[in-house]
Amino acid sequence: MLLTISKEELLQRQKAFLEIMQNQKVDGAVLFSVTDIFYLTGFYFLPTERPIGFFIDPQENTHLFVPALEREHAEEFASVDFVHSYPEYPGTTHPMDYFKKELVEAGLQGKVVGYDSNGYGSSMGYRGPKLSDLLEVSEWKSLHGLIEEMRMIKSPAEIELIKESCRWGNLAHRLLQKYSKPGLSEIEITSRATTEATMAMIETLGPDYKPHGSPATAFFRGQVGEMSAFPHAVTQNIVLQKGDNLVTAALCDVWGYKSELERTMFVQEVSAEQEKFFGIMLEAQEIAFQHIKPGEPTSSVERAVQKYWEEMGVTSYIQHHTGHAIGLLGHEAPFFDLGDQTIMKPGMVFTVEPGLYVRGLGGFRHSDTVLVTNDGMEMLTYYPRDLESLICL
Amino acid sequence: MLLTISKEELLQRQKAFLEIMQNQKVDGAVLFSVTDIFYLTGFYFLPTERPIGFFIDPQENTHLFVPALEREHAEEFASVDFVHSYPEYPGTTHPMDYFKKELVEAGLQGKVVGYDSNGYGSSMGYRGPKLSDLLEVSEWKSLHGLIEEMRMIKSPAEIELIKESCRWGNLAHRLLQKYSKPGLSEIEITSRATTEATMAMIETLGPDYKPHGSPATAFFRGQVGEMSAFPHAVTQNIVLQKGDNLVTAALCDVWGYKSELERTMFVQEVSAEQEKFFGIMLEAQEIAFQHIKPGEPTSSVERAVQKYWEEMGVTSYIQHHTGHAIGLLGHEAPFFDLGDQTIMKPGMVFTVEPGLYVRGLGGFRHSDTVLVTNDGMEMLTYYPRDLESLICL
Repeated sequence: MLLTISKEELLQRQKAFLEIMQNQKVDGAVLFSVTDIFYLTGFYFLPTERPIGFFIDPQENTHLFVPALEREHAEEFASVDFVHSYPEYPGTTHPMDYFKKELVEAGLQGKVVGYDSNGYGSSMGYRGPKLSDLLEVSEWKSLHGLIEEMRMIKSPAEIELIKESCRWGNLAHRLLQKYSKPGLSEIEITSRATTEATMAMIETLGPDYKPHGSPATAFFRGQVGEMSAFPHAVTQNIVLQKGDNLVTAALCDVWGYKSELERTMFVQEVSAEQEKFFGIMLEAQEIAFQHIKPGEPTSSVERAVQKYWEEMGVTSYIQHHTGHAIGLLGHEAPFFDLGDQTIMKPGMVFTVEPGLYVRGLGGFRHSDTVLVTNDGMEMLTYYPRDLESLICL
Repeated sequence: MLLTISKEELLQRQKAFLEIMQNQKVDGAVLFSVTDIFYLTGFYFLPTERPIGFFIDPQENTHLFVPALEREHAEEFASVDFVHSYPEYPGTTHPMDYFKKELVEAGLQGKVVGYDSNGYGSSMGYRGPKLSDLLEVSEWKSLHGLIEEMRMIKSPAEIELIKESCRWGNLAHRLLQKYSKPGLSEIEITSRATTEATMAMIETLGPDYKPHGSPATAFFRGQVGEMSAFPHAVTQNIVLQKGDNLVTAALCDVWGYKSELERTMFVQEVSAEQEKFFGIMLEAQEIAFQHIKPGEPTSSVERAVQKYWEEMGVTSYIQHHTGHAIGLLGHEAPFFDLGDQTIMKPGMVFTVEPGLYVRGLGGFRHSDTVLVTNDGMEMLTYYPRDLESLICL
């Protein structure tokens, strides 16, 4: 089983990006996006205050610019023609002065140059010049979002990695449910389920498995009891009680590829009120599934779900749209949203997660990861969705 | 034991920021930095493609602008005067149009307005206008980095949270060392140490403990055997072998506050070559400690370490400077770097981590977290640093 993206596929991506550059009529390109650099080069690294950039010169050579502490690492793991480095940030000479020198030597000066953002950005104490103040070019052209668009359609290899992610997220979630008992803290249940699923995963996959992120993980993010009514509550170390509403999440990175599995569960018992909202949420998710098909805009899915919410008279309990794309990032464009007119295409991977949030009662949301196929969709996550299966005994 | 920053302290921070605004002669301010928003308001949230912003109006009212799914969460947890929300991103009306309306209603139009970055930024499929295209003002003034500067000097409450972080990082590291045996994968050892330390932590601290990040965690980040020669290798799922060089890390978030503990360890035995580099690294760290004192520039610490590296003839094995500040982020300014002239002051917290990296042999780096005091420094981490203590049996 291949648990990576092959070097051949990385080079195909670079070739596809070169075609985009030709269409955009740029002679070279400079990228700072960590995710896009990983996507194009296979180099997974810990971003810090030390700038890292990727560029393509007019001769179509690929270059990676890294701090000294990443030089040998990049030379060993990045699919690029050249690796350049600078001593340190901030350093006695600013890293961007070294970067300028490399850009000039690679022949980008005076050319039409594409870029994704106007300089390196980091919240970790970084200060630095704008890219446009660094180099004299004949024209700067923003390529922002174009690699993100390439990333929307997943290749067969990417889909396999996402399926592998679903498998281990499923195990972590199974254990999370098994250990969800009154009197235990969400952190305790999370730790136990996560560790056991991770152990099973690494024993099964062996040393070929590289997470490039987090191994199998399942948690509540604080959505326990009444706190489950906050869609993005954060881990609060809450102790579970009988009758609590839970909203869970299970994730697993496989060579950086992600999936999302979320379930509404109940601790030992469920009230009539909880059952009512659970049923409406479940039906909304079914409606979303039915509307996922290639050739339609992503907004059509949201519109169908909203129509159903209105029919059921629950619009006051909605706090977000129905889903988002997923891949190398946990949230990616496009979105199942009234304002998103992106046309669905085979190979796109989405989460489907309409939710209801009732203050004083709890939150109701399942999230499944699905693949757009030639004639509809395929569910990639496969955890039970029905009420009976989701009452923690 | 207080495991949070009090509302009183949050309001003091807002007051201090208002004074900065007065010094900068701005009538209002708009901030997008997730870390700075948490620092000023106590609102910890999961950043996504959905914009979140904070602003202060000319009447000194504080405002938080959030998506609908964070509205009730913010109303409950944020220390601000007003919470505003918008339905969703991308939405049929862009969130920044709602933001503009709030800024206008709060009286920022036509004023001198400070800002930290020119618009909301997120890699998760976000597209949006620049802040400067949103609003007509008399002048835009960048306040970038000024709250980061406020964050450099830690209060007594912040230091207590960092000390609490060190305590549980120490436990996680102790267990990591205990479980570091030949034949076990780095992920297995990490999972076991992390889970057990986390369990002990939550049982000890109880439900008052809110991580706002990760509970007690210890890991290798792929720095196992020859891979330890990459300072920022990433987790590789490597199986430990007798004689391996290890470089570890232990962390723990306590209400978002971090510490850093890293050790060079050896699996069961150590070679003369490993011992030699270990000894040089250890002495370099001692030299750094001796040069940490208020009133001196941070560069003086790096200069002393570099002088020692030169004396020992090991400059070809250096890949980074000696350390960085730490607090709400794992890396913060200022840095122990030749190019950083920031004057050390009591209350600053730094990592001290000079390192040597020898291809084919391994990496050699300890990292300790220290507090600048009135007359020198105090070690906050307290794990053994000597060779004998760091051979895993």
